[in-house]
Amino acid sequence: MEHTYAVIMAGGGGTRLWPVSRKERPKQLLPLLGKETLFQSTVARLETLFPPERILVVTVAEQAREMRKQVPSIPEENYLIEPAPRGTASVVALAAAVVKKRDPQALMAIQTSDHFIRNVDLFRYLISTAFDVADKGYLVTLGITPTFPSTGYGYIQQGEPLVGDYKYPVYEVKRFKEKPDEATAQQLLRGGDHSWNSGMFVWHVDTILAEVERQMPELFKAVTRISSAWDAPNRKEIIEEVWHGLKSQTVDYGIMEKAEKVAVLPAGGLGWSDVGSWDSLFEVLLPDMNGNVSTNAQHLGLDTHNTLVYCGDDQRLVVTIGLDDIVIVDAGDVLMICKVDQSQKVRDVVAHLKKHHQEKYL
Amino acid sequence: MEHTYAVIMAGGGGTRLWPVSRKERPKQLLPLLGKETLFQSTVARLETLFPPERILVVTVAEQAREMRKQVPSIPEENYLIEPAPRGTASVVALAAAVVKKRDPQALMAIQTSDHFIRNVDLFRYLISTAFDVADKGYLVTLGITPTFPSTGYGYIQQGEPLVGDYKYPVYEVKRFKEKPDEATAQQLLRGGDHSWNSGMFVWHVDTILAEVERQMPELFKAVTRISSAWDAPNRKEIIEEVWHGLKSQTVDYGIMEKAEKVAVLPAGGLGWSDVGSWDSLFEVLLPDMNGNVSTNAQHLGLDTHNTLVYCGDDQRLVVTIGLDDIVIVDAGDVLMICKVDQSQKVRDVVAHLKKHHQEKYL
Repeated sequence: MEHTYAVIMAGGGGTRLWPVSRKERPKQLLPLLGKETLFQSTVARLETLFPPERILVVTVAEQAREMRKQVPSIPEENYLIEPAPRGTASVVALAAAVVKKRDPQALMAIQTSDHFIRNVDLFRYLISTAFDVADKGYLVTLGITPTFPSTGYGYIQQGEPLVGDYKYPVYEVKRFKEKPDEATAQQLLRGGDHSWNSGMFVWHVDTILAEVERQMPELFKAVTRISSAWDAPNRKEIIEEVWHGLKSQTVDYGIMEKAEKVAVLPAGGLGWSDVGSWDSLFEVLLPDMNGNVSTNAQHLGLDTHNTLVYCGDDQRLVVTIGLDDIVIVDAGDVLMICKVDQSQKVRDVVAHLKKHHQEKYL
Repeated sequence: MEHTYAVIMAGGGGTRLWPVSRKERPKQLLPLLGKETLFQSTVARLETLFPPERILVVTVAEQAREMRKQVPSIPEENYLIEPAPRGTASVVALAAAVVKKRDPQALMAIQTSDHFIRNVDLFRYLISTAFDVADKGYLVTLGITPTFPSTGYGYIQQGEPLVGDYKYPVYEVKRFKEKPDEATAQQLLRGGDHSWNSGMFVWHVDTILAEVERQMPELFKAVTRISSAWDAPNRKEIIEEVWHGLKSQTVDYGIMEKAEKVAVLPAGGLGWSDVGSWDSLFEVLLPDMNGNVSTNAQHLGLDTHNTLVYCGDDQRLVVTIGLDDIVIVDAGDVLMICKVDQSQKVRDVVAHLKKHHQEKYL
């Protein structure tokens, strides 16, 4: 499929994996899984489908420098630099305009940079099916079959199955739903016709740009102006100027929810995780027979169960005795030890430190 | 009391406070309590009773170097260097012979180097009472009134009260008892006439040397030979030669148990601890309103109770969330996290590391 492209969105910061992730060191650039960073494993996964010349990255300048170091295979001109974050709708529209300029017949897969996927074979299978569907003029989203009533994700309700010779079942999208409360999440899980919104999309550049033009005409004008100036000497100035005038908007709310032909591939068994909190690493890294997980650490556990040890320094010995359900994160200047089921309270700690002007730990 | 001397025994190693205490860094030389080491606080306590010229230290050469750095006030000639450990009986006999040579009328207080005492005023009061009793020809031991049925200490059973004008009640010693099993410990506690053996003694140099001569004549000959050569140019060679021929023996078993006039001062409320395991620091350092204790650490605890944080580096932030009854010890190359009631299992870890030739952590 020579007209297919991947676009990795990698602008985000976030402190849910504090104290390892920091303002200057976002999650995707950290070796959370061992030696590899999430960004590196994302690229490795995509390189089974796309040559590096057809993988693009949209990010901010500081992160681009680090990414170039981590993944030298992607050409420098494939980095699209956002002067400032303006939401995923802007990213998607810019990427589509730039890719279209390069290849008017292009199909593109929008990918997150900081998620984990265990089953790469299934992923390849889904993406190639999604390209077949996108080729018919659909905006395709990858859905994740829910495994628990999460209140942390948006949901996608599937409607009728699409007719066609697809290798994997595909459905029309009936509705996008915001993050639900717990009772609603229970209902959605039981209903069996809802998927989590993974933030991964596949479409033809013309399909998405037509929707941008229809629903967000100002954004369309902006990215058209940028792509026209792409080969001009003052490209950077034009991007700066145009970008700062944009309103921040998500692709879900700004485009997908009111788009015309939207399809969903609900994927079960992908081994997907958004690695959104420390306890999610128990899903991503495989626990040993005591339920323990350790990464970048030399762990000696006596009578220790369901305990995670993350340590930046694998020369350091971490000894645990009599622990159950504990997360231990050694991030150099900060050591965090936390009950597993309270790992979301990391946010309260970050808020506390911000309030007390402890910037050096943020 | 110009003829009183203090002798600090400080030869011990021990790994009960591993990973902070190591073969090369014994407990008494560590800043377990904050800025001060146990050795420093021992000397500070004794300096309220003795001028530094009358405080002696018996130790091994490597430790002496570090002690001189930590406490410059004690003159160098007051350090008696053991060529090799030969038990507390040998230390006591050597110290008595050396002190007697300096001052034939001397009374001396044998002190441990690695114990904690909160109530220094009571300590002064007890020691000065003990000197009064020692002046009557008694070997005096300081007993600790038990607060729980410990199986970790030797016990001293008291007999009749001594008649005399003493500021504090003193008793004849009826019997010394080895570390008991748990049922016996319960009994001893209920009986009310037993104290823990603190390892602190007070006596006249003549009294103790007479008992050494009577019960351990070879040791008596050895220390007499050493003290005769004390001012000779070949003192060091003679100590080396004599010392290596000695049998290792404790003062309790070798001298006290069969001595003739032995008295005990049972002290309650001294705030004494042998700082023998990590959980003992909860007694030594005062817990905050959540039961937490931290030393040399910057601790931010959310929903954290009865948790100890020891960290060598007070620039490092230790964050805990949802923890109860946990000991956290950061010793640089080793991080140990342990349920409080299992802190004695540190020994199993040390044994494991020894077995697996991980010498660098020992």
